[in-house]
Amino acid sequence: MASHMARGISRTLVTVAAVKARRGTRFAGYLGATLCASGGVLLYAACSQNVSAAQKVSTIDTSQFMAAPVTDLSDLEKNKEDMKAKMELLIMRIQSEFCKALEGEESSGTKFTVDRWRRHNPSEGGGITCVMQDGETFEKAGVNITVMSAPLSKQLQASMRARGKELPDDKQFTFFAAGISSVIHPRNPHVPTIHFNYRYFEMQDEDGNNKHWWFGGGTDLTPYFLEEDDVRHFHSVLKSSCDRHNPQYYPKYKKWCDDYFFIKFRGERRGVGGIFFDDLEAEKPEDIFGFVQDCAESVVPSYLPLVKKHRQDPVSEAERRWQLLRRGRYVEFNLVYDRGTKFGFATPNARIESILMSLPLHARWEYMHIPEPDSREAKLTEVLKNPKDWV
Amino acid sequence: MASHMARGISRTLVTVAAVKARRGTRFAGYLGATLCASGGVLLYAACSQNVSAAQKVSTIDTSQFMAAPVTDLSDLEKNKEDMKAKMELLIMRIQSEFCKALEGEESSGTKFTVDRWRRHNPSEGGGITCVMQDGETFEKAGVNITVMSAPLSKQLQASMRARGKELPDDKQFTFFAAGISSVIHPRNPHVPTIHFNYRYFEMQDEDGNNKHWWFGGGTDLTPYFLEEDDVRHFHSVLKSSCDRHNPQYYPKYKKWCDDYFFIKFRGERRGVGGIFFDDLEAEKPEDIFGFVQDCAESVVPSYLPLVKKHRQDPVSEAERRWQLLRRGRYVEFNLVYDRGTKFGFATPNARIESILMSLPLHARWEYMHIPEPDSREAKLTEVLKNPKDWV
Repeated sequence: MASHMARGISRTLVTVAAVKARRGTRFAGYLGATLCASGGVLLYAACSQNVSAAQKVSTIDTSQFMAAPVTDLSDLEKNKEDMKAKMELLIMRIQSEFCKALEGEESSGTKFTVDRWRRHNPSEGGGITCVMQDGETFEKAGVNITVMSAPLSKQLQASMRARGKELPDDKQFTFFAAGISSVIHPRNPHVPTIHFNYRYFEMQDEDGNNKHWWFGGGTDLTPYFLEEDDVRHFHSVLKSSCDRHNPQYYPKYKKWCDDYFFIKFRGERRGVGGIFFDDLEAEKPEDIFGFVQDCAESVVPSYLPLVKKHRQDPVSEAERRWQLLRRGRYVEFNLVYDRGTKFGFATPNARIESILMSLPLHARWEYMHIPEPDSREAKLTEVLKNPKDWV
Repeated sequence: MASHMARGISRTLVTVAAVKARRGTRFAGYLGATLCASGGVLLYAACSQNVSAAQKVSTIDTSQFMAAPVTDLSDLEKNKEDMKAKMELLIMRIQSEFCKALEGEESSGTKFTVDRWRRHNPSEGGGITCVMQDGETFEKAGVNITVMSAPLSKQLQASMRARGKELPDDKQFTFFAAGISSVIHPRNPHVPTIHFNYRYFEMQDEDGNNKHWWFGGGTDLTPYFLEEDDVRHFHSVLKSSCDRHNPQYYPKYKKWCDDYFFIKFRGERRGVGGIFFDDLEAEKPEDIFGFVQDCAESVVPSYLPLVKKHRQDPVSEAERRWQLLRRGRYVEFNLVYDRGTKFGFATPNARIESILMSLPLHARWEYMHIPEPDSREAKLTEVLKNPKDWV
């Protein structure tokens, strides 16, 4: 088992210069960090000491982050008007706000473990994976950040072309990606599962030409029993975020979400949807960043009220069994269809544990399980087969 | 829940003529059968009465089959020298022998439920799916037969070409497939999971030209703890079957098995292998049929001794948890890599419940679970990463 160092160690203030000096051997001497090779990546436990250190010399406030950003703070400082840096700082903040909101629902005091890791080739970047497992409220909760820059494999180049990106055949491309991705599987079947993912991509050829950039993302809900008020609340919050930017966004991205999270061989959606978009471009990244930020900030208000409302609802064995069957469907979608998971599988030396943290702690497959007509299970299934408008 | 009619009803002898008369409305009037529409296929419970009926007028003995064959008995009788009929009768017998051997290990008397189903277009054939769930010895056991004949979709045509089959572009192809496929997930973590699959394919164009045929198959073992004696026994039985036909088969198909059941993103195999082969051709199908028959007949002697030996071994909670984690890997292989599952996903109106009966009743995913060095879990993992020769 990899060593995890939980947060909560008393913080020591050190300067960025001191942190950087210690980084001479590429994190190996990182104060308090445990280094081990794992699945093609360098993995070490995050240490809060490095987080607050930066405050002393930086105008970027990282004191609340789950770990130090992937990119050196001095580089973020220097390039802070660049979208790559802006996106990294946004997802660091969202990760922290969301993790802390979830920890607030764990009266037993369960906390996220924080893994700060680098790619096998550390100059390609890395990520911060926060996972809470076997909590009282959350059976498995994962909130992952990746900030990486690497050559685009031939396979991914082909799939980018299939998506309409113009990439000349004779050029080698590199890509930059900064994204946050999260799946939360609560213990109580009356609390839905939520997933969200917001990401920024840049791609350019070896000469710095043929530059492409785009945003993608979305937030969607997977309830086990249909509480229409809850679904309406969830969609309303997302719609408000969309409407502040463009009244056409919500209907368009709601439909895209219903179409995307579709388990074709079952003829049903994974859940009751939300919003989903990809390849979002404009004249400048700044024109879209505000929208993405608004969406990411709406995760907590869309979801936390549902957790608070239902986390202590009484649960029968039959309800638990149904939840596990639905989690089996979640696994089916993620392994067979999900674009992010496939992108991960196709990325050389990907950190598989961070990709598959989305899978539930438990799942179940029963042969020929068909809900009784008019049961609550059948009502949910009906909505998964025929998505509805909620707001 | 679909109605299942368990076997064990007292058998009534009726003649094939009488059965055929009742089939006038395409099985709807089948004596004692429950008909319902499900997932694009006609599903009804098999009734043993129809099985023994045939004995009266046929030289084909179907009395021990789990249900009546998919193909009309009179057609099987008429074409019994044809490989399509020979293969259907072989897999019917193997299904029955294997199911009965497993039922013999259930002292609580749990039996397989038997679903005999047809494709949405009944003239395309169907199958017989036998599942035992929540038994004392077997947590989930599935033994499925498919006998079908349908147009080859464009997607499958392309994948056949990628496998080297010469299929002229301007022709429409139909295929025939008869196969048995089984996955057995025992309850006790000291009893390994077994999978086997034997299949015969024919393909020809609309004019009856460009005919291709081949056999594929294999048997492989997925233990949760490494008992070297057990693995040696398993491989020895398979090797004997191979050696009776060609001394090069076992080493070749053992390696193919290790290469095939590989979870690339984990860098590990699904289990300790066995044999695997595909696209097996010769001058005549008869030259290979004996080998395939021998392999299929070796399933019971390769596996049942392991069940008998370990099914009552004491089990700790930690051992159960490890078993469930390994079952998660089984799900990963089946959904992401397995050729048969992908073939099923790509077949229009496939009966998804028969394809996914291979998934375990329970599976588990823990973030960053890495076995302790030198533990039994680590020893198994080592063999999954670096396959060994066992005989």
